Amino acid sequence: MQGSTQGWSRLPAVVALDGDDTLWHNETAFAASHDRFRDLLGRHVDLPAAEVDALLLATERRNLSAYGYGVKGFTLSMVETAIAVTGGRIPAAEIQEILDLGRAMLAHPVELLDGVREAVDRLRAAGLPLWIITKGDLFDQESKIARSGLADLFQHVEIVSEKDPDTYGRLLERNGIPPRDFLMAGNSLRSDVLPVLALGGRAVHVPYALTWAHEVVDEAPTDGFATLDSLRDLPDLLGL
Amino acid sequence: MQGSTQGWSRLPAVVALDGDDTLWHNETAFAASHDRFRDLLGRHVDLPAAEVDALLLATERRNLSAYGYGVKGFTLSMVETAIAVTGGRIPAAEIQEILDLGRAMLAHPVELLDGVREAVDRLRAAGLPLWIITKGDLFDQESKIARSGLADLFQHVEIVSEKDPDTYGRLLERNGIPPRDFLMAGNSLRSDVLPVLALGGRAVHVPYALTWAHEVVDEAPTDGFATLDSLRDLPDLLGL
Repeated sequence: MQGSTQGWSRLPAVVALDGDDTLWHNETAFAASHDRFRDLLGRHVDLPAAEVDALLLATERRNLSAYGYGVKGFTLSMVETAIAVTGGRIPAAEIQEILDLGRAMLAHPVELLDGVREAVDRLRAAGLPLWIITKGDLFDQESKIARSGLADLFQHVEIVSEKDPDTYGRLLERNGIPPRDFLMAGNSLRSDVLPVLALGGRAVHVPYALTWAHEVVDEAPTDGFATLDSLRDLPDLLGL
Repeated sequence: MQGSTQGWSRLPAVVALDGDDTLWHNETAFAASHDRFRDLLGRHVDLPAAEVDALLLATERRNLSAYGYGVKGFTLSMVETAIAVTGGRIPAAEIQEILDLGRAMLAHPVELLDGVREAVDRLRAAGLPLWIITKGDLFDQESKIARSGLADLFQHVEIVSEKDPDTYGRLLERNGIPPRDFLMAGNSLRSDVLPVLALGGRAVHVPYALTWAHEVVDEAPTDGFATLDSLRDLPDLLGL
């Protein structure tokens, strides 16, 4: 454990956990699709892998305001990038391969991170109400929660389109939870930690091995929150 | 007004309204995209319009379990159908046209149906709490609600992935509303009327000029709910 837990002597009224890359693996599936996408484009153009990634990320970012987060928008951005990068030379059959890549991601088995089940069971045993607050596509996230086998262990599930202080603030107000009694744990500084700290809540950062470039924070703060190697250690952090 | 409003002498505790094709036009934009999609395929294959529509609908239905509802899934289904129907002969530049079609739908201005604003204002003036319960893509629906100019007039907005009795039941329970005190008005018998009647709630059907084939109910019931030509007439129906 690193970081500060000053003023954490009281238990929180609610412990909220992020979904993708906190409860279950996600970015690994995106990374595998990136690999296959680069291979596919490599049949037509000779570009360094880093350049293909940068072009795809630029398309994704440009499309965020139209598509939001999630696999369907990612698939559409892969198709668009492939058409642009090949100057329209990519055959339809290979565009179908990109659609298949996207569909495989949606059907990908939901694999819990190591220690998640143990942490959830210990938090529940201590009587702490648990929420999932996850960002992305409503349909895909609901499907992942259902397939995770965790749904019944959480008191509340909230799928949001963006994790900013406004979103967290509305959610806490609607449920009558003062921010200082709220704890959020997740893998993204940008989505799980900083907006919660901005509201006066408590945050625990549990980094994942991979981070989507869009979620990377340029100047990462290190103060005011705790950092854990694994969600398994969260009950200990709370003194349970 | 047609249909039955027996037992409606008490005002409901909540009036919930559907979004697409109840508050704002939606299916007209899909129909326009269907037209352009048929034109595009017409450059490559000689198929009757009805057959193209049937093939696209079959793809959409097959993909519902992976994509859910919404424009992004519809766009992916158009691309897939175009590749299949042309036997892979469609050039990438025309697939880009399909992506552009989808993006134009997402950016399409939100146009309220006639009488909606008047109905909402009268219901609010009578002190009735108003909800929006709408189905589809979280990001797209949030964007439409924001652009509709109606967001501040509703006490609660719920975006769901499917409108079935389970979904309505959970929503009412979470908000402490007995089904008999709940009234839902919308354009879809399948999504807005039948599941609410099944729970013991009240439903008002306000048909739209167009109905997506997937929402059509084979044997439409006519009993147990009211039918209005326009949402404008809802306050009168409730005796306001």
